[in-house]
Amino acid sequence: MSDPILENRIIDEFTRRFVPPPHRLNGPHGADAELIALGPGSGRLLAVTTDALSEEAASGLYDDPRLLGWMLVQANFSDLAAVGADPLGILVAITYPPSAGNEDLGRLAEGISEACGALGTYVLGGDTNQGREWSLCGTALGLVPQGRTVTRLGARPGDKLYVSGPCGQGSAYAFLKLFAPQAVSSLAFFHPVARLAEGRVVREHASAAMDTSDGLLHTADTLARLNRCRFVLDDEGRSVHPVALEMCRAQKFPSWLALASVHGEFELCFTLPPENVAAFLAAAAGLAWQPVCIGEVETGEGVSIRSGTDLLPLDTARIRNLAATAGSDPASYVRELINYGREVGS
Amino acid sequence: MSDPILENRIIDEFTRRFVPPPHRLNGPHGADAELIALGPGSGRLLAVTTDALSEEAASGLYDDPRLLGWMLVQANFSDLAAVGADPLGILVAITYPPSAGNEDLGRLAEGISEACGALGTYVLGGDTNQGREWSLCGTALGLVPQGRTVTRLGARPGDKLYVSGPCGQGSAYAFLKLFAPQAVSSLAFFHPVARLAEGRVVREHASAAMDTSDGLLHTADTLARLNRCRFVLDDEGRSVHPVALEMCRAQKFPSWLALASVHGEFELCFTLPPENVAAFLAAAAGLAWQPVCIGEVETGEGVSIRSGTDLLPLDTARIRNLAATAGSDPASYVRELINYGREVGS
Repeated sequence: MSDPILENRIIDEFTRRFVPPPHRLNGPHGADAELIALGPGSGRLLAVTTDALSEEAASGLYDDPRLLGWMLVQANFSDLAAVGADPLGILVAITYPPSAGNEDLGRLAEGISEACGALGTYVLGGDTNQGREWSLCGTALGLVPQGRTVTRLGARPGDKLYVSGPCGQGSAYAFLKLFAPQAVSSLAFFHPVARLAEGRVVREHASAAMDTSDGLLHTADTLARLNRCRFVLDDEGRSVHPVALEMCRAQKFPSWLALASVHGEFELCFTLPPENVAAFLAAAAGLAWQPVCIGEVETGEGVSIRSGTDLLPLDTARIRNLAATAGSDPASYVRELINYGREVGS
Repeated sequence: MSDPILENRIIDEFTRRFVPPPHRLNGPHGADAELIALGPGSGRLLAVTTDALSEEAASGLYDDPRLLGWMLVQANFSDLAAVGADPLGILVAITYPPSAGNEDLGRLAEGISEACGALGTYVLGGDTNQGREWSLCGTALGLVPQGRTVTRLGARPGDKLYVSGPCGQGSAYAFLKLFAPQAVSSLAFFHPVARLAEGRVVREHASAAMDTSDGLLHTADTLARLNRCRFVLDDEGRSVHPVALEMCRAQKFPSWLALASVHGEFELCFTLPPENVAAFLAAAAGLAWQPVCIGEVETGEGVSIRSGTDLLPLDTARIRNLAATAGSDPASYVRELINYGREVGS
């Protein structure tokens, strides 16, 4: 369970030459967004995150520029949601290929604009360049009241494990889009929205939080490692979105496989000390939001799924490393993941 | 002279769908970095800018990952220098191709780290992805004391025109690298450093400022358009860097051509009301910095070069639009620019 994660090795090797900023409050891997002190008296921290999309365009996973723009914005604000930030806006750096016409650029801008509108936030600025391929980079900015942040660190045995909503739509979208586009009449179910308002409730009650943009199992594995605990998902039925459950049933995959793909969605996964649960649920009800309890934190390590009275420990390191070893092609990654799922079973 | 700029048309067409952020103090094209209000009582504005490099890697213009990393950082902080910001740090989103080995990634990280060290700033965070080609995106963040910013707007007839140092090294580097690598023993002269300390002096005295990252003529044209003035460069000898002058002499180009390429450097170009010049020069001397007066602002429009008693008006719109019409290949752009230079002469 504690095998090293290849992706983290690459990041750590890359970043070891950088001097840690004295005014950054989180350590490496410690939060979905960087938390930067703005100096005494400011009362707030700057939350900032950057996220690029290029392979998603090149592979055809997002072949509509409007979806590309939507996802760029949502992916970045989802990282801000996971630290409970109030958004200031986003910068977008767009590199477009010679083949992109005015219509493509217009649809991209529409997707970006619609996503900002849905989140009540703004494009602050950007950069446009011609290149050989699509490459999009977003940087989202927000503020968090000092002393009221939530990071990936702080979960303890006994905490309850929650998600902001069922997961696996990202997986279902990726599988259907790349392998079985004829299986459903529409892929419009995949239109994820960053959980900014929910994140501001989570920051007041949770011990740790992270988004599910790389898949729920990835999230649970990261939180388990950082907090040196075991994360137990006690009822997969509640954690998996109906669309993903249906896809797994039709394809004869174990349903946890929908939580294992690196193409996730923008739910929040967070841990609540038991004494905070009642106040948290009351605040959630105020947003007409129904968070889902999917398990608990125990002593131990790794991620397990409780199926009846059995515990199925998942080799999450192996699952996560499939993405690194499959290279940059999503299709070959998904194929390897499916093979692994069939091998392990449900 | 007032022909539209194609690049701005593309940007304006792209951004017209975005709601202008009510807390952004600059308008579109109004400043090198976005200036964002942080709310009452904070006393400071957030300055933020994003800048991507991809074609520079694909074209071989920067074929050393170390230079790529250095340029990514300097380009972003140069935009912060132009608004007089105190840097908080930079986020870097790195997409690397399958062909990139550990050594390439290590050299890239070194270039990033060295550039941050030279500027006394930090990598705050980032994102790494595999893709088909190199694509780098930086986002630099800083703070400016409220009421003490400088933007591109505010120049008036009668103002003196300054640069932080002679320009054209960027042009010289691009030409020699792509067309005449054998002409000089080393291209190590091109190691530009963002003028952050100088920018903090400029903000206290200048009426307008912009960096020369797209070439000095581009900068002067942008400032002339935004401020509805004529910018006159009165002695090209002082505005052109010795390396660029030598390159122009050897290649029989008019020397202003070294100021016309879109591959610039990171000097600041700024305008000083005459009554501010003495105090400005005293402050500059305190940094052991020798800014260069290269002309003045007059009533009228466009950019002219004064050569003796003659005024040579430059068709800066045509020069700037060469970059848009040449597409994304720097080599064909440089070729078209050289043809234009020979046609106009000196």
